[in-house]
Formats: sequence, C-alpha cells, structure tokens
Amino acid sequence: MPVVGMIGGGQLARMTQQAAIGLGVTLRVLSDSAHASAARACADVRIGDHGSLDDLSAFAKGCDAVTFDHEHVPSDHIRALEAGGIACRPGADALLHAQNKLIMRERLSAAGVPSPRFSPVREPADLAAFAERTGWPVVLKAALGGYDGKGVWVFHSVDEARDVIDGAVARGVELLAEEHVPFRRELAALVARSPYGQGAAYPIVETVQRDGICHEVIAPAPGLDEEVAARAQGLALDIAERLGVVGLLAVEMFETDSGILVNELAMRPHNSGHWTIEGSRTSQFEQHLRAVLDLPLGSTTPTAPYTVMANVLGGADPAVYDRYIHVMAHDPGVKVHFYGKEVRPGRKIGHVTVLGDDLDDLLARARHAADYLREGPR
Amino acid sequence: MPVVGMIGGGQLARMTQQAAIGLGVTLRVLSDSAHASAARACADVRIGDHGSLDDLSAFAKGCDAVTFDHEHVPSDHIRALEAGGIACRPGADALLHAQNKLIMRERLSAAGVPSPRFSPVREPADLAAFAERTGWPVVLKAALGGYDGKGVWVFHSVDEARDVIDGAVARGVELLAEEHVPFRRELAALVARSPYGQGAAYPIVETVQRDGICHEVIAPAPGLDEEVAARAQGLALDIAERLGVVGLLAVEMFETDSGILVNELAMRPHNSGHWTIEGSRTSQFEQHLRAVLDLPLGSTTPTAPYTVMANVLGGADPAVYDRYIHVMAHDPGVKVHFYGKEVRPGRKIGHVTVLGDDLDDLLARARHAADYLREGPR
Repeated sequence: MPVVGMIGGGQLARMTQQAAIGLGVTLRVLSDSAHASAARACADVRIGDHGSLDDLSAFAKGCDAVTFDHEHVPSDHIRALEAGGIACRPGADALLHAQNKLIMRERLSAAGVPSPRFSPVREPADLAAFAERTGWPVVLKAALGGYDGKGVWVFHSVDEARDVIDGAVARGVELLAEEHVPFRRELAALVARSPYGQGAAYPIVETVQRDGICHEVIAPAPGLDEEVAARAQGLALDIAERLGVVGLLAVEMFETDSGILVNELAMRPHNSGHWTIEGSRTSQFEQHLRAVLDLPLGSTTPTAPYTVMANVLGGADPAVYDRYIHVMAHDPGVKVHFYGKEVRPGRKIGHVTVLGDDLDDLLARARHAADYLREGPR
Repeated sequence: MPVVGMIGGGQLARMTQQAAIGLGVTLRVLSDSAHASAARACADVRIGDHGSLDDLSAFAKGCDAVTFDHEHVPSDHIRALEAGGIACRPGADALLHAQNKLIMRERLSAAGVPSPRFSPVREPADLAAFAERTGWPVVLKAALGGYDGKGVWVFHSVDEARDVIDGAVARGVELLAEEHVPFRRELAALVARSPYGQGAAYPIVETVQRDGICHEVIAPAPGLDEEVAARAQGLALDIAERLGVVGLLAVEMFETDSGILVNELAMRPHNSGHWTIEGSRTSQFEQHLRAVLDLPLGSTTPTAPYTVMANVLGGADPAVYDRYIHVMAHDPGVKVHFYGKEVRPGRKIGHVTVLGDDLDDLLARARHAADYLREGPR
C-alpha cells in the first residue's frame, strides 16, 4: 500500500488521516511538534522543520507522493524535492499561485479570470495612485504568508496605511493593493484534479467569515442561480487545469451585483470543505488522497439537501470536553469534530456539522452547538 | 481529553480510531504486533499480550476507560483490572456472555429470551441424547474462543462427531449442542448502552454468511415486518440492560417461520454494523466510544433508504491496491475500506459500502466491487 507524506501537522492532516485509514493508505506527517493536531492521530510522524530542505528530503524518502497541510514550504525546497524525483502534489509551479497572492493575481488576470483590480505596492504613493482608480477603502495584503485574516488590512487613507507599508518594506515583505469589493456574500468552489487529468467539482458553498476567519459554511449556497453555480464550478476546474494543480483546489469567491470574482486560492483540503465529511459521498480529505495518488476521483453527490458547518473557536474556558454532554444530549444528530489542539481564545479548535432539509433549523442547531462548545451556557 | 484503551489491534480498533480522531479522543491500542491493522493507524500503540495481566495492567494505567476489539481477554484478568479501579466497558460480568456461549444460553433461556434449544456436551452420549429431542443435524460449538465459523460444527450423527468431541474433551474444551434452526434468513440487531443507562438501537439488518463468515449486510433488512423489527430491537435493548452491557451489543438472530431466535452476542463494534460508517448519522465506532465514555448517544437515523456492505476477503493475488483503479473508476460512489492487513486467501481484509434507494442496483454494485478487489477480472 502506498505512503503519502503530508507536510504540516495541523487539523487538515489530522482529518486526512481519517480518510487514509479508510483507504488503507499510510499517511506520514511532518510536524514541528509531537503534540500537534495530526501528530496525535497518526502512526507515522516525523518531527522536523518544513523550512529545512534536509528535513524535507529525509521525510520524503520512501513516500509515493508528498502533499501539504499548509502553504509555508518554500518554493525552492519543493523544486529541489521534485528535482530529486519526489512526486510533489501539487508541484512547486502550481502551488506558487496559492503561496504568492501577487503572482496569483497576475496569472489569473492574464488568463481573463474575473478578479478584483490589484496593484503591487512598494511605497505609500503606490497605494494612493491605486486608490485614485478604485476609490477608498482599499485592501492591502502581504503577498506571502497570510492566512485567516493575518496579513490583510483595510485602509481608508494613505495616512492610515503608512506605518504598515513602511514596516513591511523595511522587512522586505512584498505587498499588493486590491479593490475593496462590495460583495453580496462569499462563496467557495472546491474541485479536485488528478495527474491523469480527471476533475471533480463539489457544489458551490456559501461561506461566512468573521474577523477574517471562516465561521460558517452552507452547502449548497442557498438560492444561488444554477447557471452562476455551474460557471463558478467551471471556473475552478479551469484554474486547476491551467495551473496544473494536483489534489484539491479551493477557490474563495465574491458574489457581486455584476458576477463572481476570485478572491483567494488554496491547494489543499480547505475549511470551506469540512462539510463534505458527512455531507458528500466522498469527503474532501479522501478526494485529496485519491487525486494525489492518481486514483479515480470519488462521487461529490451530496448526502442531504443541506449541510451546515460551523467552526468551533477556543473560548475563555478550555474545558471543551466537559461541554460535549450538553451538546450531544441536546442534539443527537450534531457531529462534533475536535482537533486535539490546545485551546486558546479565538483559535480554530474544531467544527460541528448538521445535515437535513430545513436550513433555518440546521443553522440554529449548528450555531447553538458551536457557541456552546466555545462558551458554555450564556 | 479522555484516553480510551482498546485491547486488540484488529480492524475494529482501526475503525474506532477514525471515530476517536473525530471526537478528539485518544485511542490507545494494545496490540500483539506493531504491524497489526490498528497499530498502523494509531499514535498511541502499546505492544503486549492480552493474555498477560501484567501487560493489561500497564496498558490500562492512565486510561479513562478500557474496552475491547475482541472477546479473548480472560474474565479473571478483567475482574482484576476492575478491582484495581479500571473502568472496563463492558465489565467482566457482562462480557462473559459474549465469551462463553454456554453461559450465554443458560442466562438468556432463564430470562425467557427466544433461543434455540441447547445442551452441554461432555461425551458423545450427550449429543445422542440431545439429537433424540431435536433430530439431526445438530450444531456443536466450543463454548469459548470461536469466531468466524471456527469452533462450530454441524453433525448428522454421533459417529461423525465422535473425534471432535473426544479431542475437545481431551483438551479441556467445553462444548454445547444446539438445535439446527431452519431459518429463513439471518438478522442482526445492534444497540448501544451507556453507564448512565441510555440506550440506542440501529435498524435491524439482514446478514448473509458464507462458510461461517459474514459476507454481506443489507440495512435495513428488506421486507422485514415492522413489528418484528421493533421486537428485535427491543429484545437487544432488553438483553443489554439485563446483562449490564456498556458499549455496543450486537445480537445475531435467526428469522424463522415461528419468529426470531437469538444466535450469538458480541459486545463491541461488529461486522454487521460496518454499514453505519456511511449509512447512519452516527457510526457504530463513534457510538461505542460515546457509550464507553458515558457521553449521550448519537442519532441512529439512516442516511439513505438502503445501505449494502460487502466484505472483501483476500484472494490468490495480494495486490489489492492495484485493483482500486478499476473499482473506483467503475463506480465513483462505492466506498472502499481496507484494513491494512496482510492479504491471505479467505481473510477479511476490507469491506465496501454503497448507499441508495434501488436495492438490486446496490447489491450488484457492492458484489462487483468486493469480488473485483478479491480476484480482479474474471
């Protein structure tokens, strides 16, 4: 049976391990700590630094394919692994577009993919010039390394932005400005692509963000026009093909009055796809493994009319397990997922999923469970 | 977060690990080998002998509860653990009825549970006397240690049975005779019971055995009279309550012209419940953990009108993984489960599950996938 190496020991690797167990595949995890989320759940854990080529090379030896739980492995290291004959999936050339937002914007714009206007920012004057075209506010982003709202700012004037720009330039951080899109809501497309070239698309979902963190996902996005949904799926499949993605591609999108715009890309299991564990015939985690191993992809048929996923964040009281009793007794149909991470306020520590046909009921149940797991009784 | 210790490193522990990861619970496994099915899937594996009280005691230390992947731990050892304050779930007094078929028969008959006639057999004359009451053929069973058809014989005369009886008596093996029940089909009830006393029942399923090994499971049992189904569920809940079972109880039953008879008991996740991984809101593995941890039990609502599970046995060619491509390309909706065990002819190495509303279609698909994984193209 094959060995898939996943670089990163977070909850995405942890949930991939559940799928790997089912398929009989060995998931080997490179983790910076034996106490990381996935390290607590896997039999084959190697402790090492994803920034060290030596650690990466030692880890990859004997893996049939190497894939990623996050975007933080330097491109040059992935290229070096590939040069050494390691099947990195996705490869460095594809992954670069999920690592560097400026390169992604340039590539997708050149390909005619509908995107917000953007511009590189090297000094405050660049931001001023950009805002003259788009108006304020303007979104400023670090090209590399941001996630969950980190490395993203919204500014209403150059004066507001000056310290951030000067600080970033001083540290050599590449910046880009993007127009602030007045969106109706956020959507996400999730597709998989195998080396053979097979593609599979999940239904388009609605995502609700708070403070830059994914808060809630509704699958499928309620009331979404069928043609728009098909176009969004097609767009994601097209991006996956064009960039040579292998594995999952998540495309975060804005739904606006004039259509859909691409916000961000991720090439790994994604928070917007956690609903698929119960809500789809094939979970995103199994799908990622199948794609990475060049196996035929699984059915993305939903298992219920609606699935709602709500993230559980850490609250003031870390005794989450003590709150299982209420949540499970209150609602025997709610699925509780806990990532085995140390509880810190605001940190993603788990999620809950409910399925059914009454969306309002599902939203109320998911929110109750997630809120209670975070805070206990109000 | 709690630690559940599971004694035995087989596929039941392996699939329990998938559920434990979801709940954020640590599953610690006692395995006789680092290459056993569950040992390949768990982070916390202790190598030891389930027949050694020293190994069991060392293993149980620090576990919030201890449970079982098989019935082979000696009763006295479980009692010793309990005396030392370890929460064994199920406890020795309950588990004894899944370990010793004679004690089980005596207890259930005394309680008026409908069962086949039976009698202890200490010499060939006992079998002859029993057959005079029931007629031939007669089923002979070893009271202890049988599974998957091992330790079970069907005899048509005393002469046929003499060698087996004499051999067993010489080795000190306790035997019992049971009437050979002319059943219409085999059914199984699966229930869970928590220390708090909560019970939960899954739909009654039909099981198809071949050579004493579970071959196929259909959930729910097609065409089963609703009243009979409710009575079978009630019977299993009643047995769980009466015997003080904590965790899962599987009750294998015969459906006969005159009603239902209890065949065997198991107090752990059971082959007849593998369909619940995809086919029920709460899998039997999660349910077992919830019961063992005294958490409220999960919903047993089915996720589809029918679920069919077919076991995959080892065939002549061990290269099972090479056959994934055909099976997955042929049917993107089939779920393949592989246990990470060495392939040997006739050994249970995995299972497949399909869900939907057209039972004939599901049966054809499950059989094709299971046959192909075993043998490849015919």
